[in-house]
Amino acid sequence: MSKIDVAKAPSFKGSGYPPPFDEPCRLREGKRLGMAAGLTQFGVNLTKLGPGAWSSQRHWHSHEDEFVYVLEGELVLVSDAGEEIMRAGDCAGFKAGVRDGHCLQNRTDKDAVFLVVGSRDDRDGGEYPDIDMVFKPGRYAAKGSYYAHKDGRPY
Amino acid sequence: MSKIDVAKAPSFKGSGYPPPFDEPCRLREGKRLGMAAGLTQFGVNLTKLGPGAWSSQRHWHSHEDEFVYVLEGELVLVSDAGEEIMRAGDCAGFKAGVRDGHCLQNRTDKDAVFLVVGSRDDRDGGEYPDIDMVFKPGRYAAKGSYYAHKDGRPY
Repeated sequence: MSKIDVAKAPSFKGSGYPPPFDEPCRLREGKRLGMAAGLTQFGVNLTKLGPGAWSSQRHWHSHEDEFVYVLEGELVLVSDAGEEIMRAGDCAGFKAGVRDGHCLQNRTDKDAVFLVVGSRDDRDGGEYPDIDMVFKPGRYAAKGSYYAHKDGRPY
Repeated sequence: MSKIDVAKAPSFKGSGYPPPFDEPCRLREGKRLGMAAGLTQFGVNLTKLGPGAWSSQRHWHSHEDEFVYVLEGELVLVSDAGEEIMRAGDCAGFKAGVRDGHCLQNRTDKDAVFLVVGSRDDRDGGEYPDIDMVFKPGRYAAKGSYYAHKDGRPY
């Protein structure tokens, strides 16, 4: 069978951020659809954000293009451009190397669901402009944490 | 603004296949969402198939992972594994280099809509197992046709 069994796809919940940065992503969960199909060149995650949850801390990627497509509910896209409401059928793309931190926030009392696609490039690193954190290259090969303070000290 | 203006995204209609292979894709149309956001590492197309239309001739890719996610309507996924019905929320992935030709066919009398994601790699080529056609590497840089007979003669 070629169709992905979504129920059996690898799942994730919350985030790997060090506290307290993990808090806004506690009600984030989803399925790794691309991984379920054995894809390695890009990831496709089906992500559900509970009421109040964020997709991530606001961040940008040095080497990976990223794309989001909203399937259900209402989200606020936060970037340097300000805030934009996104509903089913709305989408956005974030080009690798553009230092404009972005994230999606669910400010409603209902779940919101979106697809996110990202290239997989182990050279990729990036920054969280709103907090004292960066992510270092090598996170696909990483065994430990790839999060660090902006002065380089690991979390 | 970071959100993509879908109505203004680059559009496509039909296919570039040489006749008569273009016929099943005549009622295919869509929007190049990734391109609209300036992404280059992968493409994301929002594709609508009218009644009877196919996403493509059945094909496989040598160097590009591919992923499809159905948003609306009902499609038949045709691959070496046989036929599978796909509806909203169903998805499938096709790993680069796996020589299992696949396509989506709308056999209903209503439109069907899906997202398709594919890496962009100019080394990519592939084959259409059901017809006398291949596609040659270099299609992103190509000015002319990259379709050829299986004996190498260009179309």
